[in-house]
Amino acid sequence: MNVPSKPSAPAISPTREENFPEWYQQIVRAADMADNSDVRGCMVIKPWGYGIWELIQREMDRRIKETGHKNAYFPLFIPLSYMAKEAKHVEGFAKECAVVTHHRLVSDGNGGLMADPKAKLEEPLVVRPTSETIIGASFSKWVQSYRDLPLLINQWANVVRWEMRPRMFLRTAEFLWQEGHTAHETAKEAEEETQKMLEVYKTFARDFLAIPTFTGPKPESERFPGAEETYTFEAMAQDKKAIQSGTSHFLGQNFSKAYNIKFVSRDNKEEFAYTTSWGVSTRMIGAMIMTHADDNGLVLPPAVAPAQVVILPILTKPEKRDEVLKAANELKKKLEEKVAFGSVLRVEVDARDIGGGTKNWEWVKKGVPVRIELGPRDIEKSELVYTPRTWEVGTKVSMPQAEFIEKIPSLLTSIQKEMLARAERFRDEHTHEIHTPDELRKFFSGDKAPGFAVTLWEGFSNLEDEMREKFGVTVRCHPVECGIGGKKSAIWAQSY
Amino acid sequence: MNVPSKPSAPAISPTREENFPEWYQQIVRAADMADNSDVRGCMVIKPWGYGIWELIQREMDRRIKETGHKNAYFPLFIPLSYMAKEAKHVEGFAKECAVVTHHRLVSDGNGGLMADPKAKLEEPLVVRPTSETIIGASFSKWVQSYRDLPLLINQWANVVRWEMRPRMFLRTAEFLWQEGHTAHETAKEAEEETQKMLEVYKTFARDFLAIPTFTGPKPESERFPGAEETYTFEAMAQDKKAIQSGTSHFLGQNFSKAYNIKFVSRDNKEEFAYTTSWGVSTRMIGAMIMTHADDNGLVLPPAVAPAQVVILPILTKPEKRDEVLKAANELKKKLEEKVAFGSVLRVEVDARDIGGGTKNWEWVKKGVPVRIELGPRDIEKSELVYTPRTWEVGTKVSMPQAEFIEKIPSLLTSIQKEMLARAERFRDEHTHEIHTPDELRKFFSGDKAPGFAVTLWEGFSNLEDEMREKFGVTVRCHPVECGIGGKKSAIWAQSY
Repeated sequence: MNVPSKPSAPAISPTREENFPEWYQQIVRAADMADNSDVRGCMVIKPWGYGIWELIQREMDRRIKETGHKNAYFPLFIPLSYMAKEAKHVEGFAKECAVVTHHRLVSDGNGGLMADPKAKLEEPLVVRPTSETIIGASFSKWVQSYRDLPLLINQWANVVRWEMRPRMFLRTAEFLWQEGHTAHETAKEAEEETQKMLEVYKTFARDFLAIPTFTGPKPESERFPGAEETYTFEAMAQDKKAIQSGTSHFLGQNFSKAYNIKFVSRDNKEEFAYTTSWGVSTRMIGAMIMTHADDNGLVLPPAVAPAQVVILPILTKPEKRDEVLKAANELKKKLEEKVAFGSVLRVEVDARDIGGGTKNWEWVKKGVPVRIELGPRDIEKSELVYTPRTWEVGTKVSMPQAEFIEKIPSLLTSIQKEMLARAERFRDEHTHEIHTPDELRKFFSGDKAPGFAVTLWEGFSNLEDEMREKFGVTVRCHPVECGIGGKKSAIWAQSY
Repeated sequence: MNVPSKPSAPAISPTREENFPEWYQQIVRAADMADNSDVRGCMVIKPWGYGIWELIQREMDRRIKETGHKNAYFPLFIPLSYMAKEAKHVEGFAKECAVVTHHRLVSDGNGGLMADPKAKLEEPLVVRPTSETIIGASFSKWVQSYRDLPLLINQWANVVRWEMRPRMFLRTAEFLWQEGHTAHETAKEAEEETQKMLEVYKTFARDFLAIPTFTGPKPESERFPGAEETYTFEAMAQDKKAIQSGTSHFLGQNFSKAYNIKFVSRDNKEEFAYTTSWGVSTRMIGAMIMTHADDNGLVLPPAVAPAQVVILPILTKPEKRDEVLKAANELKKKLEEKVAFGSVLRVEVDARDIGGGTKNWEWVKKGVPVRIELGPRDIEKSELVYTPRTWEVGTKVSMPQAEFIEKIPSLLTSIQKEMLARAERFRDEHTHEIHTPDELRKFFSGDKAPGFAVTLWEGFSNLEDEMREKFGVTVRCHPVECGIGGKKSAIWAQSY
């Protein structure tokens, strides 16, 4: 092992400590994940960011199908009258919709365009903020008898919620997500479904994104508009705020009554179905950044890295160029025969003619789990030099190529575990049991977010308004993992 | 081999012969692929239809990535001012846009909702009908130097074009597609890209969907608004009309000039890039139905069947029920160890308690390539009874299970080949060389579409308006596969 070179100044400015929200924006930029667009609140997801989303999609889709769901696709547009049918749902979503009112453009006479007044829609259309309403309308046609139940459907789609304070990945006007929608014979079955999908999400976050979460129902004040119960899983960002990473809703018969999802039961009676919905979105990428990235850039859990290994051939000697590139590509091929996290390894060779230092830092900032340097002398000795992203940037290890190739799957697996363990340690260090209301007020009275406070629910439930108004603190969930004394508890925190 | 039972009356009414357009709608319904929705021109893609799209996506995505492209995602909304920048593009697309004018709903005072007059957007937004404009704006930021080129991007997305006469899959207001967008240093490179992707499409249609196509440039009158050259691939429906199944455009410098995609060249000069775009959509599913379905329902090429084999256990004897179901699931497992078209086999067991005849016909109508019946007596003899979808419905063959398991990959491959060969034969039988304008007029003067007419371009190019107006016939392309005497030729046909 070489002596580590002196740690350099951090690549990202400001650092997490200096200004966490601005650091976050700089990470997204430095890792080349996304751009702001000229369309208010909408982002452009660049190939590196989209590659992460594709891996999330593929793995989540597999888990959703494994639990018996099938994918389908429903219209982007929702008639205004559909929105109005479920009273609470409207209240929650009507404030932030994109409304389509015309179906044609004409010249405005000044070289520009305008909506054609002659092409005004009779009924305006809402761009879906979520699809309970339009899917409910389909379910009412598809469900006739108990034999049609359970109906287990999922959709991958874009949705739009007008956002006043957008933040890339975490909160954007348009975002990408999956939304599951199911209908069941009994309340019990529907509740089990809600919990099952919450568990799928929690496990996915833990094993794939290395994000530890607390899970549980939300208090009534934080429920999805129209839900009987909303379950959430909450991660902790490195500034100790909570990030709701997805939700799973038990909708009871609220939507089946509003959209007429009825079936003839086993007793030959007409009954309303019990429905659920559940979703995770591109927000998960934001949660992953806030959990793992550091002052040098993104740090990707190997399972979700579009490239898990990057080979940086050292091309400083023109006469050796072809030989080094050939060796790099051969090494790539051999690595691509290996399997980690159920897929063949994803390996890139960066053969661009730019300075080695710049190139190395680009991949540090992109968060690739392992960087390999390969120069003429390494090739002579059949060796390579590698650095995991989780090490100090200057630290390097030489190793025979054959040994490295054997070792890489277990190296990636152990990096993944290490990242989860570090995140768990961080979260647990900043999660505190609090026993009195005064203690709770004190806990949140400093300048910076102090972490998660766990309290009993009894004796604290009346503090919600005060905590929200004074400290911007809400009850994130009634946790199943960290309740006090087996009693109904609450996690309080500032949040994104 | 059992004696085939008497062919039954066709399951789909009307038949292809009786009323092709109505037959098409009935196929979509009978195969449970899609529903019309209450939103004008928008369809709901049901699990069976969406499963086909997922397979198309997966395979097409693989081919797009293999040719060096990366996926990204751009906003759904396009500012009105972007649309206005490329004059011809506006002309072509401005007539059929969904226009977002407000970002909030309020109560209308009558229990309904309306767009909030206080939340009118300063600049209306267009729901993307295609993304050249908004992607052009990003490319102008991403491209600085020749080192940034070629820029090879693809997007999977939904797009909206207001359609006055929608038809499920073939022409819907909202549809799903991929759109590739690339930028290059030279016109030659961009033209090569355009052709390369056309070839990817043609090969995909042939090898995956068993659809033979003719390819070539469109005449100027049929070009994409703003393109220098539009290449198409055209299939022939069973009513002998043409279906444009996708296009690939060489955009020259039209869009790079409109959206300012400039780069510093190798000679250190500032130049505009040359761009391309190319796309295929859910329309391909429509083309596949029109090519292969018959009077009994959908017929799926095995490569694109969400289930390639369905096992129908015979559950008439209650005392044998468990045994038969167990055997069916064991057979499924063994079949799922086999590989066809590069993927493990997709097999379903239909264990529903409904009549065997009804069940069998459901799968006929859904077009599953191979149906298996498995009853107590088959199990005793370790046999099964199977029927490929391409055979008469009553025809059945008994075979030892072990032999069938060995044989199934080659059976599916040969069904796929047979379907392509049949479609090629049909198309070629209905493609005729025509040598004089009068002969051309006569060819199209009957009540029904007669097929494709191939003519020279010289001496016929002035007939475009007349043929369109009199016969609804257009030049589909200047074909590369079937030109006359090596000279520039044209395919004329009615079309969808």
